[in-house]
Amino acid sequence: MSERVTVSQAAALLREADRILILTHHFPDGDTLGSGYALCRALRALGKQVRVVCNDAIPEKYAYMWEGMETQDFEPAFVCAVDVADEKLLGETLQPLAAQTELCIDHHGSHRPFEKRLLLDAAMGANAMIILQVIEELGVTLDVPMADCLYTGIATDTGCFKYSNTTPLTHRMAAQLMEVGAHAEPINRAMFDIKSRARLSLEQQALQSMTFYAEGRIAVMKITEEMLTTSGACEGDLEGLSPLPRQIEGVWVGATLRRKEDGSYKVSIRTGAHADASEICALLGGGGHARAAGCTLSGSDEAVLNELLGAIKQAVPRLQENCE
Amino acid sequence: MSERVTVSQAAALLREADRILILTHHFPDGDTLGSGYALCRALRALGKQVRVVCNDAIPEKYAYMWEGMETQDFEPAFVCAVDVADEKLLGETLQPLAAQTELCIDHHGSHRPFEKRLLLDAAMGANAMIILQVIEELGVTLDVPMADCLYTGIATDTGCFKYSNTTPLTHRMAAQLMEVGAHAEPINRAMFDIKSRARLSLEQQALQSMTFYAEGRIAVMKITEEMLTTSGACEGDLEGLSPLPRQIEGVWVGATLRRKEDGSYKVSIRTGAHADASEICALLGGGGHARAAGCTLSGSDEAVLNELLGAIKQAVPRLQENCE
Repeated sequence: MSERVTVSQAAALLREADRILILTHHFPDGDTLGSGYALCRALRALGKQVRVVCNDAIPEKYAYMWEGMETQDFEPAFVCAVDVADEKLLGETLQPLAAQTELCIDHHGSHRPFEKRLLLDAAMGANAMIILQVIEELGVTLDVPMADCLYTGIATDTGCFKYSNTTPLTHRMAAQLMEVGAHAEPINRAMFDIKSRARLSLEQQALQSMTFYAEGRIAVMKITEEMLTTSGACEGDLEGLSPLPRQIEGVWVGATLRRKEDGSYKVSIRTGAHADASEICALLGGGGHARAAGCTLSGSDEAVLNELLGAIKQAVPRLQENCE
Repeated sequence: MSERVTVSQAAALLREADRILILTHHFPDGDTLGSGYALCRALRALGKQVRVVCNDAIPEKYAYMWEGMETQDFEPAFVCAVDVADEKLLGETLQPLAAQTELCIDHHGSHRPFEKRLLLDAAMGANAMIILQVIEELGVTLDVPMADCLYTGIATDTGCFKYSNTTPLTHRMAAQLMEVGAHAEPINRAMFDIKSRARLSLEQQALQSMTFYAEGRIAVMKITEEMLTTSGACEGDLEGLSPLPRQIEGVWVGATLRRKEDGSYKVSIRTGAHADASEICALLGGGGHARAAGCTLSGSDEAVLNELLGAIKQAVPRLQENCE
């Protein structure tokens, strides 16, 4: 069973460890990578052997995170997962390491323990905010690359300070990281503004697929393998698509259905103040945060859609009459 | 001639004044309105008669700024302009008041004095950051509506903390305003995220029209009256479309051509570090800033496009060989 630890206990574990393998979640985003590489750099600053691994290829736009770090080959003696809410999210190649995970640092309220020790703080909008506290506890002085990694995690998981998971502490940490020298503007441009033509084409096709239910309170967007193929988009191009349905005027619940090759659907739910995304996904065997959650569904297009709309109706009773 | 004053001198002037008229700039944005209404609320808290005026109708999305404030009719005895860089920007109806302006509080380095006294701080990404300092100097305790107004000004003028004008102080002030109770998430949602279905449809059609030249270095997007009609979009839905072409990976020059009913084209140019938008538009009888400029062209679609591409080639020689 997993034992809860504090920031200083987690720091103590890492201080005693060496030959550390850091696990990030599959379909990596700015927060799991920023957490992983910032922690990796901090532990290397203490003279330890550390490397970061991921089930999937890491999008090129994150390359600055490992710039200047030499590869270290070693037999891992300590496994630490960052921003991984469930062992399934390690992905096929890393899931075998779940049982050996000594420490997991996560910020998902829906975290399903698979590790020996857990540092969890669901009040943190980004996991990188917890990593910043751990690095300070380790007594490592932040450098610019660490600040860039941590800033990236904070900015990407809070929608550049736009989402409701942004708190005064989020802003204070951003200020601290900018004072260290974080390249906030180029990072934000790369994360939020610049789109590849493939991504643009994918977004176009996805938006075309948008359908509305419950008098426009529910918006459902589909992403198929075919869209990925015809647009030439890669995994990285999928990031940032899930918020789109909820950004349409009048929408309470925005859902993005990504059809996988095996026919199953990866479902992302985004909500505003009127609905709780984690409640909806809990009904579907998934989990996440109040405004952003996910789950996996299987079946025909129609069956999956009905299951999803049913769960939304159940979790958001105020929508019921509209959904009939 | 205009005399420069400090924050405390500006506060002293306002403390001694009454029956205060606050001028905002025309085509009002979140910063001029947030500055105006926050200052108005603070001065009313000191028992003064104050009102905010603008040359143009104020978009409905800003209505929360004056919620609960009763109208006050009085003969103005003190005129104060906020976020107004030039008397021309007061607009036709307010420009006659330029000569009577006792105090202007502004953050534009390009400010052209028209007022008796000027509080200018070009290091502030948003004018609302200066207003916050003035309100503190006045000794007024911030309330939630003031915090909402100031947060709106800061968020809108910094692209929600994304632009290079964002500093550690910007984040610290955002933290302070959130602690007072600023409704950051709904404000950001209203300012940055929410799109009407009409706007979404218009954006879709506009993006479909995008064509690339010079090996993808130039992107041209067209907006026709027909798109406005079929999408049901209004003038307000056009806001924020012009940056889209430039946000595509590899694009140096992004152009948006809006075809008017009279057949002429309103052209908006956006550039990155590789090209100067004002140089391009100067060649076409227009003008603007280095990264954002505009002009008007007339002729057939083909003639206008050739004239535009020719000017871009001339202003950005490094593109020439690609444009052949």
